Amino acid sequence: MKVLGVLGGMGPAATVAFLAQVQALTPAQGDADHIRVLMDMNPQVPDRNTRPGEAEVELAAMALRLKAAGAEILAMPCNTAHAQKPGILAAGLPFIDMIAETTAVAASTGARRVGILATPGGEALYVAVFAAAGIEPVVLEGPDREAFMTRIYGVKAGEVGGAARDRMKALAAGLVARGAQGIVAGCTEVPLLLAQADVTVPLTDSAEVLARVCVKRCLA
Amino acid sequence: MKVLGVLGGMGPAATVAFLAQVQALTPAQGDADHIRVLMDMNPQVPDRNTRPGEAEVELAAMALRLKAAGAEILAMPCNTAHAQKPGILAAGLPFIDMIAETTAVAASTGARRVGILATPGGEALYVAVFAAAGIEPVVLEGPDREAFMTRIYGVKAGEVGGAARDRMKALAAGLVARGAQGIVAGCTEVPLLLAQADVTVPLTDSAEVLARVCVKRCLA
Repeated sequence: MKVLGVLGGMGPAATVAFLAQVQALTPAQGDADHIRVLMDMNPQVPDRNTRPGEAEVELAAMALRLKAAGAEILAMPCNTAHAQKPGILAAGLPFIDMIAETTAVAASTGARRVGILATPGGEALYVAVFAAAGIEPVVLEGPDREAFMTRIYGVKAGEVGGAARDRMKALAAGLVARGAQGIVAGCTEVPLLLAQADVTVPLTDSAEVLARVCVKRCLA
Repeated sequence: MKVLGVLGGMGPAATVAFLAQVQALTPAQGDADHIRVLMDMNPQVPDRNTRPGEAEVELAAMALRLKAAGAEILAMPCNTAHAQKPGILAAGLPFIDMIAETTAVAASTGARRVGILATPGGEALYVAVFAAAGIEPVVLEGPDREAFMTRIYGVKAGEVGGAARDRMKALAAGLVARGAQGIVAGCTEVPLLLAQADVTVPLTDSAEVLARVCVKRCLA
């Protein structure tokens, strides 16, 4: 059993939901069957959208500290911050890439046109990996992009009620109306507002995918 | 803002629920308003009920590593493991005592006879602190004690469904029938099976109390 190191806090609610998935997805008859998780939930990492360089310096330092504390595999339940992956890899530990793993699962549904619910930075990462996987991306456009970011920052401020959920559902429906045969919840705040039952096409939840891979890799 | 160090994993589901409380109880408009949490979720800490000495050695080492990683205040969402508090204090950091904090909240409800839902080890800690606070304890007796532990180990194996909840509700009702004017959920697995709505007297949730104090102390 390997020790999982989690670079978290981007944002805190999404990190807690991810940890709950890791816990729930682990086959366990008692405490000792669960994996050990070292976490740095650091909500003060500089904004990944507006200060990417400073964010990378901080994430690199977090990765090194997790390694020093005993982490053997690293994961980060924030899609946008995967742009800072090189800084994390510098710690020299295996890093589970949420963008690549989520894309692989989305591709396995058979969808060839897939909608992306992500921040601009996260979207750019998905578009690049989709291209390599032969998937055509359907991205948020115009006012929907701004409306999406309003909902993400809303989750970080505790807005996870019905109105916020309705708006996220409408944004997903808009991507489906434009031809998406699947949707990627490519920001870990999205599943706090959107479930499979809210969408008419397969929904691939990046946080759940990451949790599954973490459990599999740490128990291997 | 101070960095919170969490000695977790006893058990994992209870730790995740505690982190969710910390997150939800923090007044925040965005990520940066949340407190930083360094966590060692270690489900392999030796059993606190059956191997207390080995557990204390491990918890002491965890506390030192959290301090080295930058933690400034320590907390542990496991009541039973508070018997190993001396080992944790050896790290030289402030440690928020869940037993003392929970007892203070239970006393503030005005109840003079308070039922304790805890493991034998956790119960002994509460009985001692209750005595100092002038509270008369009402403890589990006979087969109820064994039934309680079955439910706690059940939570650790993922059993949080209706039948388990009904059984925990009955155990709480039994304490009320024997004169308890309040109930302390003195094991962090209990609130995963029992809510205030399930009990006719004030329920003091040790995990929620600890989360509130953590937020207050770290934001102070």
